[in-house]
Amino acid sequence: MRNIRLIVTYDGTDFFGWQRQANVPTIQGAIESAIEKILTEKVSLSGSGRTDAGVHALNQVANFKTPGSIPCENLLRALNNLLPSSVRIKKVQDVAESFHARHDARSKTYRYRILRAPVASPFIGRFVHHAPYPLDHQRIAAAARLLEGEHDFTSFAGSAGVVREPPEHDRDNIRTIFTSRLLWRPRTSILAYEARGSGFLHHMVRNIAGTLLEVGRGKLAPQDIRAILEARARTRAGPTAPASGLCLMKVDY
Amino acid sequence: MRNIRLIVTYDGTDFFGWQRQANVPTIQGAIESAIEKILTEKVSLSGSGRTDAGVHALNQVANFKTPGSIPCENLLRALNNLLPSSVRIKKVQDVAESFHARHDARSKTYRYRILRAPVASPFIGRFVHHAPYPLDHQRIAAAARLLEGEHDFTSFAGSAGVVREPPEHDRDNIRTIFTSRLLWRPRTSILAYEARGSGFLHHMVRNIAGTLLEVGRGKLAPQDIRAILEARARTRAGPTAPASGLCLMKVDY
Repeated sequence: MRNIRLIVTYDGTDFFGWQRQANVPTIQGAIESAIEKILTEKVSLSGSGRTDAGVHALNQVANFKTPGSIPCENLLRALNNLLPSSVRIKKVQDVAESFHARHDARSKTYRYRILRAPVASPFIGRFVHHAPYPLDHQRIAAAARLLEGEHDFTSFAGSAGVVREPPEHDRDNIRTIFTSRLLWRPRTSILAYEARGSGFLHHMVRNIAGTLLEVGRGKLAPQDIRAILEARARTRAGPTAPASGLCLMKVDY
Repeated sequence: MRNIRLIVTYDGTDFFGWQRQANVPTIQGAIESAIEKILTEKVSLSGSGRTDAGVHALNQVANFKTPGSIPCENLLRALNNLLPSSVRIKKVQDVAESFHARHDARSKTYRYRILRAPVASPFIGRFVHHAPYPLDHQRIAAAARLLEGEHDFTSFAGSAGVVREPPEHDRDNIRTIFTSRLLWRPRTSILAYEARGSGFLHHMVRNIAGTLLEVGRGKLAPQDIRAILEARARTRAGPTAPASGLCLMKVDY
């Protein structure tokens, strides 16, 4: 059996997320259908993780097994011919049979892009969250740093990620964030929050971004991050920032 | 009567061009409807010129007259709130009553973007024509220069622009191209053809781009441009390049 790894980039705007669902366009569904057309066999594609509706990816990783003998180069070309232009396969490679895109992922890097320009250009508007109001970047950067390390992220977990209510401790919501930082690009007026971590709970990066925006607007202090983590209560953190700003940048193995 | 000028930018992918048409989304239609909702009066918006279905604009210029007293700043904000994110108003200004966006335009600058990368990123795919095959940039640049000056552009005019057949001379198809040049951006793998001219016939820039691609692939020689212009026959030039690559960059008055 061959084990084939794909590197995939997509504009998630018009999709109902990564995971295949009946009757709606999803990234996994689109790629599986395309592979099945090319190989004329059923395949099961594993992604490194799900991305939500409207979320983008620069380098999503996925793998599937096949007895087929199609050269990787031909599969790459055929996939890009069949897929909509909003989903592009960047790489197709044979990998060790043991490789699993989800189980073997050691870290993921996400960026949440906030456009600071007064008007959101239509050429970038699909890929950012537009926040033209005053924001204190230094406060946001200070708050972002406090998220680094191993923490119980229950306060930043979407409902699907919260298994039990506090104060009972929920081991399942403990994650390690290796880097949590702010990048400011004056040329494009894009403020990006970047998080690299061992894994992320459902909605976690968007909930962090929504909370950092509250810090930037002065509704929360940077040090409040500590108490929010401690509380392990979703209600203590800020709102979920819109999907359009989020992009899965890369997955490390 | 006030005369108000708008600077507009749009992603034309999901529109049937600039000009209002019944029952389909157009840029002019969307902006007129939004103004009419805000001012509660009928308005007639003049653009500097039409752009075709799928063509983009960075700085389209338009104007309309109104007896209303709304401050420009408020109209700008209200328009961007009402319009879809694919159409953004960059500027709203009171101008002299004599100003007319179409009649007063002295030159227009278009760019046709050709993406040379092997895979078209979904983040740029809507705004380029993807041409990953071999192209000789120097040949294209040489051909582009031959289009500068005053010429009869009948060979590059879409059917709507051809009023009479050659050899009878058609004054209506004479235009002046001030600059016709190639820009190569290795960082983004985008080869852009830029034309600044007194005016452009229907499909003219896309027909030029399609012809330059034939030169780049070796199907035409750069010097063939002279004979193509001379022939005043659409059949002599190359095919119409896809709309996605074209963007109206600016209009000078």
